[in-house]
Amino acid sequence: MAEELQVFGFWASPFSRRVELALKLKGVEYQHIEEDLPHNKSHLLLQYNPIHKKVPVLVHHGKPISESLVILEYIDEIWKNNPLLPQNPYERALARFWAKYIEDKVVVAMLKAAKAKIEDREKGLEEAGEALEPLEKELGSKRFFGGEKIGFVDVVGTVVAYWAPAIDEAVGIEMIGSDRFPNIKKWSEEVVNHGVVKQILPPKDKLVPYLRTVLSRN
Amino acid sequence: MAEELQVFGFWASPFSRRVELALKLKGVEYQHIEEDLPHNKSHLLLQYNPIHKKVPVLVHHGKPISESLVILEYIDEIWKNNPLLPQNPYERALARFWAKYIEDKVVVAMLKAAKAKIEDREKGLEEAGEALEPLEKELGSKRFFGGEKIGFVDVVGTVVAYWAPAIDEAVGIEMIGSDRFPNIKKWSEEVVNHGVVKQILPPKDKLVPYLRTVLSRN
Repeated sequence: MAEELQVFGFWASPFSRRVELALKLKGVEYQHIEEDLPHNKSHLLLQYNPIHKKVPVLVHHGKPISESLVILEYIDEIWKNNPLLPQNPYERALARFWAKYIEDKVVVAMLKAAKAKIEDREKGLEEAGEALEPLEKELGSKRFFGGEKIGFVDVVGTVVAYWAPAIDEAVGIEMIGSDRFPNIKKWSEEVVNHGVVKQILPPKDKLVPYLRTVLSRN
Repeated sequence: MAEELQVFGFWASPFSRRVELALKLKGVEYQHIEEDLPHNKSHLLLQYNPIHKKVPVLVHHGKPISESLVILEYIDEIWKNNPLLPQNPYERALARFWAKYIEDKVVVAMLKAAKAKIEDREKGLEEAGEALEPLEKELGSKRFFGGEKIGFVDVVGTVVAYWAPAIDEAVGIEMIGSDRFPNIKKWSEEVVNHGVVKQILPPKDKLVPYLRTVLSRN
């Protein structure tokens, strides 16, 4: 390996998968270290991420970085080819805004809807829909959030493009119907069929049963 | 004004005040537009931040940016003097990690403790204390998170240095006692006595009664 680079991840985690996607988009080689979650975390993971005790952790020349959005910024600063963030500062700010929006609002609403008890499900789905509306509008007729090329927001957004439909299937709900979110639907197709993205997506026939188990545990 | 630059803010908000602090640290002139929160938001605020409908919004040459951490990154990219983030990519990643930690963990725990009903207060204080522990450890004997000079994490951390004690006073709790958090205490003194920080802090005799009203509303 050219550089001493490791990703501590978990096969089903959209958060560690997006870090691996960023590295693959840049053509950077790394070692994947699979964690046995949730009950058998490695000593190294706990040592590298003592605060959150979570994947992903990127370890570069022995130095650990946690939090997937922070890691993506780091990757984009270290390996400058195929930039993930736009070059223009205003466009960069908008990309960071949407990445944060997906993380803080969309993912939270998605999980809430997926974990809702039957009687709260309708409200959960309504909130997930409300969280997705601004994404639908922002996408418009663009191929990717980043324009013609996959970029920062798309990498972060794989959780919506691939994991959301898998959650729908696992739990038997419909968060992203084509009638209400045609732009997100079309963009999701682009994302999941992207040659590099395909390499990091966990197989659906393994992911769906896994999500069903995890989401019903709560 | 040299540049057409506006900050939509609110006098008591640590989130808009930190944006103004960043601009002042860089010596950038701007126009402050005070919002009448929470019930009388301006049409311009709603137009510029239709998603979150919140302060702060930075408007630069007519283009709006929301979310204070995103705004701070933008400011640091546009005005390169007195950099807020370190220059080294790994140090930058750590600064972003701690800023995010303050935002996602410390602020949330602080507000939860402050708003807790009497019977939940002890638990709330315990959680706030747990959230503050890693900050105490990270600070160690450093003057600022940024080293000898005030930086990104300190700017974000003004919410801990100044607002946390104000909340303590308003609600009659003690989140940051000197026994448990001597480093945070010492750092807080440094921060609130910094010449530029002083310019953006709302007067305590106005802030404390305001916080008392807001926090007891819930």
